[in-house]
Amino acid sequence: MKKLFLLSILGLFGIQTQAQKQLPTYLDDNKPLEIRVEDALSRMTLEEKIAMIHAQSKFSTPGVPRLGIPEIWMSDGPHGVRMEIDWDTWNHAGWTNDSCTSFPALTCLAATFNPDLSLEYGNALGEESRFRKKDIILGPGVNIYRTPMNGRNFEYMGEDPYLASKMVVPYIKGVQQNGVAACMKHFALNNQELWRGHIDVEVSDRALYEIYLPAFKAGVTEGKVWAVMGSYNKFRGQYCSHHEVLINKILKGEWGFDGVVVTDWGSAHDTKEAALYGLDIEMGSWTNGLTWSKDLAYDQYFMAQPYLEMLKKGEVPMSTLDEKVKRVLRLNFRTNMDRQRPFGSFATPEHADVARRIAEQGIVLMKNDKGFFPISKDKYKKIVVIGENATRTLTVGGGSSELKVKKEVSPLEGLKLKYGADKVFYTMGYGSGPTVYDKAIPSPYNADSLKREALALAQNADVVLFFGGLNKNYQQDCEGGDRTSFDLPFGQNELIDELLKVNKNTGVILISGNAVSMPWLDKVPALMQSWYLGSEAGNATANVISGEVNPSGKLPFSFPKKLEDNGAMSFGQISYPGDSIKQIYKEDILVGYRWHDTKKIPAMFPFGYGLSYTTFEYGKASTDKKEYGKNETIKVSLTLTNKGKIDGAESVQLYVSQSKPTLERPAKELKAFKKVFLKAGEAQTVVLEVPVQSLAFFDDKAHNWTVESDEFTLHCAASSADVKSSVSINIK
Amino acid sequence: MKKLFLLSILGLFGIQTQAQKQLPTYLDDNKPLEIRVEDALSRMTLEEKIAMIHAQSKFSTPGVPRLGIPEIWMSDGPHGVRMEIDWDTWNHAGWTNDSCTSFPALTCLAATFNPDLSLEYGNALGEESRFRKKDIILGPGVNIYRTPMNGRNFEYMGEDPYLASKMVVPYIKGVQQNGVAACMKHFALNNQELWRGHIDVEVSDRALYEIYLPAFKAGVTEGKVWAVMGSYNKFRGQYCSHHEVLINKILKGEWGFDGVVVTDWGSAHDTKEAALYGLDIEMGSWTNGLTWSKDLAYDQYFMAQPYLEMLKKGEVPMSTLDEKVKRVLRLNFRTNMDRQRPFGSFATPEHADVARRIAEQGIVLMKNDKGFFPISKDKYKKIVVIGENATRTLTVGGGSSELKVKKEVSPLEGLKLKYGADKVFYTMGYGSGPTVYDKAIPSPYNADSLKREALALAQNADVVLFFGGLNKNYQQDCEGGDRTSFDLPFGQNELIDELLKVNKNTGVILISGNAVSMPWLDKVPALMQSWYLGSEAGNATANVISGEVNPSGKLPFSFPKKLEDNGAMSFGQISYPGDSIKQIYKEDILVGYRWHDTKKIPAMFPFGYGLSYTTFEYGKASTDKKEYGKNETIKVSLTLTNKGKIDGAESVQLYVSQSKPTLERPAKELKAFKKVFLKAGEAQTVVLEVPVQSLAFFDDKAHNWTVESDEFTLHCAASSADVKSSVSINIK
Repeated sequence: MKKLFLLSILGLFGIQTQAQKQLPTYLDDNKPLEIRVEDALSRMTLEEKIAMIHAQSKFSTPGVPRLGIPEIWMSDGPHGVRMEIDWDTWNHAGWTNDSCTSFPALTCLAATFNPDLSLEYGNALGEESRFRKKDIILGPGVNIYRTPMNGRNFEYMGEDPYLASKMVVPYIKGVQQNGVAACMKHFALNNQELWRGHIDVEVSDRALYEIYLPAFKAGVTEGKVWAVMGSYNKFRGQYCSHHEVLINKILKGEWGFDGVVVTDWGSAHDTKEAALYGLDIEMGSWTNGLTWSKDLAYDQYFMAQPYLEMLKKGEVPMSTLDEKVKRVLRLNFRTNMDRQRPFGSFATPEHADVARRIAEQGIVLMKNDKGFFPISKDKYKKIVVIGENATRTLTVGGGSSELKVKKEVSPLEGLKLKYGADKVFYTMGYGSGPTVYDKAIPSPYNADSLKREALALAQNADVVLFFGGLNKNYQQDCEGGDRTSFDLPFGQNELIDELLKVNKNTGVILISGNAVSMPWLDKVPALMQSWYLGSEAGNATANVISGEVNPSGKLPFSFPKKLEDNGAMSFGQISYPGDSIKQIYKEDILVGYRWHDTKKIPAMFPFGYGLSYTTFEYGKASTDKKEYGKNETIKVSLTLTNKGKIDGAESVQLYVSQSKPTLERPAKELKAFKKVFLKAGEAQTVVLEVPVQSLAFFDDKAHNWTVESDEFTLHCAASSADVKSSVSINIK
Repeated sequence: MKKLFLLSILGLFGIQTQAQKQLPTYLDDNKPLEIRVEDALSRMTLEEKIAMIHAQSKFSTPGVPRLGIPEIWMSDGPHGVRMEIDWDTWNHAGWTNDSCTSFPALTCLAATFNPDLSLEYGNALGEESRFRKKDIILGPGVNIYRTPMNGRNFEYMGEDPYLASKMVVPYIKGVQQNGVAACMKHFALNNQELWRGHIDVEVSDRALYEIYLPAFKAGVTEGKVWAVMGSYNKFRGQYCSHHEVLINKILKGEWGFDGVVVTDWGSAHDTKEAALYGLDIEMGSWTNGLTWSKDLAYDQYFMAQPYLEMLKKGEVPMSTLDEKVKRVLRLNFRTNMDRQRPFGSFATPEHADVARRIAEQGIVLMKNDKGFFPISKDKYKKIVVIGENATRTLTVGGGSSELKVKKEVSPLEGLKLKYGADKVFYTMGYGSGPTVYDKAIPSPYNADSLKREALALAQNADVVLFFGGLNKNYQQDCEGGDRTSFDLPFGQNELIDELLKVNKNTGVILISGNAVSMPWLDKVPALMQSWYLGSEAGNATANVISGEVNPSGKLPFSFPKKLEDNGAMSFGQISYPGDSIKQIYKEDILVGYRWHDTKKIPAMFPFGYGLSYTTFEYGKASTDKKEYGKNETIKVSLTLTNKGKIDGAESVQLYVSQSKPTLERPAKELKAFKKVFLKAGEAQTVVLEVPVQSLAFFDDKAHNWTVESDEFTLHCAASSADVKSSVSINIK
């Protein structure tokens, strides 16, 4: 109708304009995607193709201005839309329209064991990205939690490939239903920050396929993700962002990925490899405002002039370029050229609500002697809160996942709102100093003075709540560096010990994205593991502490008793962190609970662990059959009963063991889970489905997934170390 | 189909998300505009409404992030999309994706007398704006050329309300068919830059309606423009950007304008007046990065907190706010919420071609003794080019219309490309110094040295082409100040005199947006009036000079012999520039040629004047009838013949005189024109249509347009001073 109207206007002037001409195929929404891609490609010059596959600024590529193919704008994620960054430096641009909603860190999302919430997370984040005119949001992160030393674990979804797979798919779908591309990262094996720019990872094919790749595969094959970010590190001698095996053979070959591979910022290293080994968009290689040197210009990027020259000389085939451009065009059609995408929304009450509910379901109750928690509203008159993390802004810092938020409710604020400002007293107790990225700065505080003030305040308290853990500074939970110790920093262990001496009624709430040692664990009556919870941190925390919300989080990674109990850490430097050139993943497939279980080294808190204010009774597990063919699906049933007096949720986990595998397998592996909400006293039959094909292991030699005919035991469990009922079946 | 797909995905997860809910009415493309506007309005909070009607940065408003109503981004025009400006200062942001196409200045567009080209101009500019994600482009400018002293005449469409009306409508339609709003400016009576911020204009209703408003009215009623910019100045004691008569009574009342009134940057002055008198969006009142002072924040704008407080106190009715918000919402639906708008394109060869063709048709051949022009390719061996404007970048400067262009071909480059670099020699001749806005800087050049070098070079030339005129510096053709002299600056008159002494074969090409004195006119064999031609300046100029293009431009304003011959300038300071507080438009309706004709003061070059390389013969004019009713249309026919040997175009003009009007009327007024392209020797019957209603004058006392029963004479003319054939008719 609009078109007809235009035609009639234009007719009056007797000239022919664009609107009157035949609509070119690439602009015709009614034509199939691939036809449009081919048509656009056929209209482009060589120079336009080259321009399209590398950055024009810190976070954008130029599109094809002549053809009206829009620029592609990206923003760091994965927990919210990052503030605007300068065109060509890393400075914050100083805009005032970019104060976003911060969603909880992905460790928290994983801890919810709730894929529905992951869809809500992705959708809300997608809406925020869309409103801010971002075409790609750089997340989610699904690198496997291999060692507690990795500074960037907080951005990932834990140690288990199955859990990460189930959580990443809805996140991606949620983002992308807004016409915004998710960009799954960092592909692959970027499991530590130390020497990430060059460390060469050696790992078996089996561990690669069974542990490190499944979440990526699910994101591609089930989530249909439109973009994947290559990692900084090497794998078997080749940089991962242009990698013959990882990208060409596996991602684009075996999995059929048809989207774009984007570098991490500065992870391209070689023009020929980039051309041949699947890199599609090069970002962040250099410049940083250093425009005084022509050598540092965007057109000197590996995939800019140098690539153009190689193409012209015939050193790499033109088809390599066309393939990349087609992928970028596909991205355009899926995002900023999709006329039907919604308009998004930004920093809304609804998004805050999503953030809060995820935070509430992610907090893990770890220890709760004598009903320390919940603390009802009228239980105490003097609640003393101690610890920097009760007030510290934890949405800033951490590297590229830093956010500028519309609001961030701190735990202290949340508690004051909940209990009344007159009942809640605070002192810092310890202090770490300002948030700095890329640099370790000693605490500027006098630890002794802070401690003395805390002890004096705690002494006469009805209850003490200590908020500690890590923060988002360099060598804590922060991109670009690894932790330097498994212990809590800033004298927290000593402080907790002394607090317990002056007031035994002291509970600990740790905020971190990583496991820490807990020498005081036996002495504290109660412990909660919390996370970087984002905008609604304080409200969620107070809701859980007060009992308005019954905690239901489960640990997405194991807490070892000591660092060497972690598989990766038990083989010395060659395994972690390597010799700065190379490292070997010596623990192989025995990552996380697979190590603890198989090696019979109990964790301090195992994967999948988490308490509730109520108690759940697991009935006896049964299967629908005793024997299954290889393409069947096993249905495991059991009755779950909420035996307590309050409503609550339990994530029932199903682990599988194979009796006599040809190759060594972990003692058990997670193959299904279901979060079940039960009212007080309610019972429900829970059915968990396990496709027989998911019982396969990856056979290195045959290079395929193999399900053996054997006996398998299915363990229904409340954690990886708390099997409630097992049942065995046979696979024909 | 997409919706169904989403529903099925979401169904899998068993939760209800936004997409699954009933699509809200305001997001439903199938609902009528006004229903969507009302629905969106009904969902907004008071604070959201207030936020929407004032700036959040130099060039944007925030939209409604909660509801997904996008931000509105604006860019200065009217000749191209301005480079990115910092969030909150006037500094250029330093982006590299904003090098645009510069189209010719609007004086040039008006000189084409070709509405088809205006549609192409608007469409190309709309495409560039759209690609750059601008929702409003701040143009066109249609203030009437009242005096040659006005520094901003170059951004407007000349002295005649009929010409401006016919040219502005297609420009607006061209822009807006891209889903980008044009913003017609500056409403109203901003006819000088000196004291523009406060000068109080007194003008009769008759001059207002007959001279200063018709182009605005056409833009609203025929062009259906979506935005209008209020001017800085006052009219009858009230600031124009919130004006009871101009905005409420005329623009929104009489003309039924349903779009937004935007301030010029900083033209709001009073909250209550803004609330009551039709201002819809307040921009640029202050801040400029001065965020150290809360008083200077955006939320202290007249239409921000102060308005909110007045509303809460009931000092202005809430309906005033809703009315503004509805207009802004309407703008959203017409631009960034119109899913069908095209994607635009940027700095394309097609746009350069549009720019070149407009430039070619706008250049006016003013004098051409003994066939000085065209200069065929082999005519001369040594062509000497003199004058700063042959090489000066003329797309920068001039105030807000400054542009950063992808390319700008200078006249010298154009001539070298045309004639060969070995035949074209250049020296500057005179110099004006760097482009500076808002400050008059004396030329840093030694005029004598430059002149000596020019004379030495000119002496032995086969032909000399002098490129002079004004430039885009302060007090030349530049926003923010008026000219201080009618003469050519930088010693050009003396230089031309001396050049003619050493080489009589010297042609002059003047580049300006204003008339200048020409004391040397009788002595030069040839003269072209050129304009700020934009990206393709040099190519267009060389094409016309060489004869590849036959000039067809006609002057859109009169060149008086001396400044006092201009109507506005003939009444002394009270008329122009006023006493700094107030001014009175003493010439009343006798603006431009209306003054020259009626007062019998011949212009040096009259409105509508322009030569060709061919000659046109006008046949005898006739009408289809002798007598017409008041709702009929007069058809005037004549035969136009191209008597020369080359193809060319002539803009046939039709002026009308009334025999015995009740009120004094101008000697004649333009009521129709048609640009006719004729091959050499070709003849064509030209029909010009004049609705009888357009013969009306505005009766101040009755406040209406009146067509009197009288005899009217229709003059077919080659310029306002060159009537070729007249015919009289009677109106019943």
